Amino acid sequence: MSVRVLEVLFFFYFASHIPITLFIDLQALLPEHVYPQPLKDLLQWYAQEFRDPMVLDPPQWFQSFIFCEALIQMPFFPVAAYAFLKGGCKWIRTPAIVYSTHVATTLVPILAHILFHQFPTKPHAGPQTPKERWLLVSIYIPYLLVPLLLLLTMLLSATYNSTSTSTFTSRHKSAKSKKN
Amino acid sequence: MSVRVLEVLFFFYFASHIPITLFIDLQALLPEHVYPQPLKDLLQWYAQEFRDPMVLDPPQWFQSFIFCEALIQMPFFPVAAYAFLKGGCKWIRTPAIVYSTHVATTLVPILAHILFHQFPTKPHAGPQTPKERWLLVSIYIPYLLVPLLLLLTMLLSATYNSTSTSTFTSRHKSAKSKKN
Repeated sequence: MSVRVLEVLFFFYFASHIPITLFIDLQALLPEHVYPQPLKDLLQWYAQEFRDPMVLDPPQWFQSFIFCEALIQMPFFPVAAYAFLKGGCKWIRTPAIVYSTHVATTLVPILAHILFHQFPTKPHAGPQTPKERWLLVSIYIPYLLVPLLLLLTMLLSATYNSTSTSTFTSRHKSAKSKKN
Repeated sequence: MSVRVLEVLFFFYFASHIPITLFIDLQALLPEHVYPQPLKDLLQWYAQEFRDPMVLDPPQWFQSFIFCEALIQMPFFPVAAYAFLKGGCKWIRTPAIVYSTHVATTLVPILAHILFHQFPTKPHAGPQTPKERWLLVSIYIPYLLVPLLLLLTMLLSATYNSTSTSTFTSRHKSAKSKKN
């Protein structure tokens, strides 16, 4: 797959993460009156439809991840969206490795919890059947898969691993060959 | 602080992590008969003395971190111990960034759980008083602080950020000046 295609995917991932974090995820942290009723209704509908009690009544360990999302990830989203929209920004490599490792790590306990925890049915129903568990996994798993793809791209692709000089040389060569 | 001092600290951190993982942490995953009685007694004593029920009856999210410790971290420990004992191994930079971000991230929910979760007193007592909570935090916090120090060293120190050529040049210069 062309690195440009991946960069466009990463751009949409980071750009779409901004409203999701602000309007949905942060409801678990901020006081209720901050959000208008339609957004609160949306979260209630999601939690009921997908059996996700973690967003309504988060255990402390899950809440700590939302703190990280607000304080560490959120400021990074516009920077990363800009870098991947522009493309070929080598300076994003190390921050993107840190981001992707952080987020992939947070997904490990979340997926283990969804798949194996014995959720109570009250006050907020959690997944009980395997089908309900896998449905909820399908909501969260993009936030494991895209960061893993981002990590692999940063670690392996030539665009993000060649030195500045060689990139300059190859660009220079490619510009020359276009002229000829 | 000299980078060599930090490298020696990182060597001891990784070298000491090998027996801790094998003999203590993995008891939460492997069948009981794998371990001799004195090691099982040691874990029981630790869990009781430091009010740590997570190692005896781990919630699924905590258990998923021990899986990561066994499968991802454990193979990295001898490699990292070797690299930091030798010193100046630039190839450890990216793996060390991934390792340190991963481990620092795992410590966020663990510390939040220790500080804020309402632990039951049975079957295994958790920390109840602030003093007991901070005592348990003091056991886990080195695994946040050392990885953060490792991350900062990899991100900021000249040893791990200069290009190979300049390092070769500076070593060459220093060897020459020693000769003179």
